[in-house]
Amino acid sequence: MLQTTQLNIPEGMIDFGVGQPSFSLLPLAALRQAADHRLSQSDPSLLQYGAEQGDGYFRATLAQFLTARYSLPVEPEHLLITSGASQALDLICTRFTQPGDTIFVEEPTYFLALLIFRDYRVNIVGIPMDENGLIIEALEEKLAQHHSVLLYTIPTFHNPSGATLSAERRERLLHLSREHDFLIVADEVYQMLDYTVTPPPPLAAHILTDRVISLGSFSKITAPGLRLGWAQAAPAQLDRLIHAGLLESGGGLNPFTSGVAQSLIELGLQDECLAHLKRVYRERSAALSAALRQHLPGSVSFAEPGGGFFIWLRLPAGYNAQELLAEARPRDVSFQPGPKFSSSGGLANYLRLSFAFYETEQLLEGVARLGQVMPNKNVI
Amino acid sequence: MLQTTQLNIPEGMIDFGVGQPSFSLLPLAALRQAADHRLSQSDPSLLQYGAEQGDGYFRATLAQFLTARYSLPVEPEHLLITSGASQALDLICTRFTQPGDTIFVEEPTYFLALLIFRDYRVNIVGIPMDENGLIIEALEEKLAQHHSVLLYTIPTFHNPSGATLSAERRERLLHLSREHDFLIVADEVYQMLDYTVTPPPPLAAHILTDRVISLGSFSKITAPGLRLGWAQAAPAQLDRLIHAGLLESGGGLNPFTSGVAQSLIELGLQDECLAHLKRVYRERSAALSAALRQHLPGSVSFAEPGGGFFIWLRLPAGYNAQELLAEARPRDVSFQPGPKFSSSGGLANYLRLSFAFYETEQLLEGVARLGQVMPNKNVI
Repeated sequence: MLQTTQLNIPEGMIDFGVGQPSFSLLPLAALRQAADHRLSQSDPSLLQYGAEQGDGYFRATLAQFLTARYSLPVEPEHLLITSGASQALDLICTRFTQPGDTIFVEEPTYFLALLIFRDYRVNIVGIPMDENGLIIEALEEKLAQHHSVLLYTIPTFHNPSGATLSAERRERLLHLSREHDFLIVADEVYQMLDYTVTPPPPLAAHILTDRVISLGSFSKITAPGLRLGWAQAAPAQLDRLIHAGLLESGGGLNPFTSGVAQSLIELGLQDECLAHLKRVYRERSAALSAALRQHLPGSVSFAEPGGGFFIWLRLPAGYNAQELLAEARPRDVSFQPGPKFSSSGGLANYLRLSFAFYETEQLLEGVARLGQVMPNKNVI
Repeated sequence: MLQTTQLNIPEGMIDFGVGQPSFSLLPLAALRQAADHRLSQSDPSLLQYGAEQGDGYFRATLAQFLTARYSLPVEPEHLLITSGASQALDLICTRFTQPGDTIFVEEPTYFLALLIFRDYRVNIVGIPMDENGLIIEALEEKLAQHHSVLLYTIPTFHNPSGATLSAERRERLLHLSREHDFLIVADEVYQMLDYTVTPPPPLAAHILTDRVISLGSFSKITAPGLRLGWAQAAPAQLDRLIHAGLLESGGGLNPFTSGVAQSLIELGLQDECLAHLKRVYRERSAALSAALRQHLPGSVSFAEPGGGFFIWLRLPAGYNAQELLAEARPRDVSFQPGPKFSSSGGLANYLRLSFAFYETEQLLEGVARLGQVMPNKNVI
C-alpha cells in the first residue's frame, strides 16, 4: 500500500489531531464537472506559462466570489494567485525576511507555520492571546523590546484556539502596525467557515490603508489537494511577491488548477461546496462541544467555536497534555498537544481537537475514549 | 483584455526570445481525456492533503515512465513531486543555502534561475562553457578560489547555449563534486527532447553514488501550465527537501494535477504528447538552422542544436547584442540578448533564439527580418 495522502492514522485510532476534511467531503463530482467544463472550451491558455499574478480572468471571477463572501469590494488587481496559504507564507518569508529578523506570531499559533518560519532562520517571538484573540497590551510590550518585520496572525476562528480577534482589537492592531511599521500577515483561511458567529470583516478590508497581506485558500472551502489560494494586498506588497524569481521563472503558480476553479465558481459549484461544508461542520462542531461538556470533567474548559475546524481544550494547571497523549493513544484516541503550537515550548496544559475529519458518530466515540483518560490524575 | 499567460508580445512582432511552446502544441484534448479518466474514478484522494513526497502511486507510474525514457532504472522512492523545476530550485535554495554562500552556475546560464538565486542572497560565480558544456579546467580554477555549496548545471541541450556536457566531462564533474563536497543541481528538463543527437544518460544516473539532485518537468514534455515536475535524488538529499516547512504544512505539492498526469501516462497520452513535440521541434530546429545559415553573414556562428529549445548565436567580437536588439525591434523581430544569461554582465556578443513558440513559416520570416540588422555595422 503506497502512501497517497498526508494522513497516517493507525487502524482503529480516532485522531482528533487531523485538521483535514473527511474524504466524504471532498467534492470529486463537482471537480469532474468543472474540469470538463473548462477543458472542453477551445482555449488552451491554462496550459501555458501563466501570468505571474495569476490569470486575469480567474482573478476577476475570484474577486466577484470574494466580494460576495466578504461583503466588501475585492478587486482583481489586489489578488495574487498562490499554491495555497503555506506556499504564500513561504514566499512572504523569501521576499520580506532575512535570517535573524524578528517576527511575531500568536501564542498559540498554527504549528506548521512555525516550521516554514524556521526554514528562513528568523527569530520567532510569541504574543499571548485570549478568547478575543491577540492581547494587544502584550503586543505593545513586545514591540517595546523588539523590532518585528511582520506579525503572523490568524484573526478569525483561530488554529488552534478557535478565537476570533474582536473588532476593537483589530483597530488597535492596525494602529500599532502603522506606528511600528510592521507587516500584518493575516491567515484568513477560516473566514468563510462561520457556523454560529458572524465574524468581523477580514483584515483584507484594510489592505489599501494599512500594510496587510491577507491569505485565503481553496483548501478549506473546496479541497486541499488543489493547492490553490490567494494573497490579497495593496500593489506595494503584492508587487514584491509577484517579482519573486520563482514567479518570473515558472510564471503564475497554478494556471491549470486556476482554470478548473474558475469553472467551479462560474457554474455555482463553489457556492454549493461551501454551503455543504458549513452545514456539516456546524453540526459536527455542535455535537463535539455537547459531547465534551457531557464527558469531560468540569475542570477541563473550552470555548465553543463559532466557526473553523478546532476546539482548544484547557486542562487545569499542572496537567500535561503530552503525558495525557501517552495515555490516550493505547485507548485508540489521539490529539495535538499544546506545546506543538507554542514558539517557546509552553502551553503544556492545552490540547487541540479537530472536528473536520470525522463523522459525528466517530467524534462522539472519540470523546468517550478521551473521557477515560481525563480524571484528576496527571497532576504534577 | 486581461492577461492570462506570461506572454506579452506586441502585435506583429516575431519574438525569438519566447522560450515557451506554441499554443497549438498545448495538449488540451489529451488533458481533458486524462482529467475525465482520473476524476471519474471513485477515489477522491487527489483532493486531500497529499503525501509530502508526492502520491506513491503517481511516483510509481512516473518512475516507470522515466525508466523507459532515461533507459536506466528509476525508483519511486528517489522521486519528489514538485510544482516544476523553478519551484524545485526555490526549495533547494531554502533548504541547502544560506545568504552569503557561494554557488556556481554556468556562464551562460538560464537567466531566470539567476533571479531565484538572487532572492536567496547567495554569491553567484559563473563557470565558462564551450560547445561541450562546462569547461572543467575553469571549474577547477574556481574551486581553488571558492567553497561552493552547489553547482547549478543544465547538462543537456543547454538553455541558452544548446550545448550538451560530454560523457568524459560528466565523469570529471562528478569527481570534483566528491573531492570538493559540493552538491550538483542538474536541471535536466530538456533531456527527453533529443532531435538529432542522443545525449549521454542524465546526471540522474548518478544519484546513488554522488551528491546529485536531478530536476525534471512536465513543462517541457507536456504543458507548462500544469506546474508539475520532479526532483530525483538519493534519500539523504531528498529527505532534506521533503522535511521543508512548506511540505510539512501544505502536504505534497500538486496532488490534483499529479492525479491527472498519472492518467495521462497510464493512457499512453504522455508518450503521444512527447512524440508529437519532438517531431515538431525537430523540424523547426532544422528549418531555423538552415535559414540562419542562409540569411546571416558568415561571421555570425552557431552550433546546430541536437535537441532542446534554443540556438545560441555568436556575433563577432565587438558586436553588441543589446544594440542589435534596439535595431531589431522596430523591424518587428526580437530575441534575448546574451548579457541576460551572464551572472557577471558579460556575453555582450551573444544572443538566444528559441524555436519552440513559432511555426516554421514565422521562424523563416523572423530570420529574414533579423538578417536586415546583421550587417557589419554595430562594430564598436
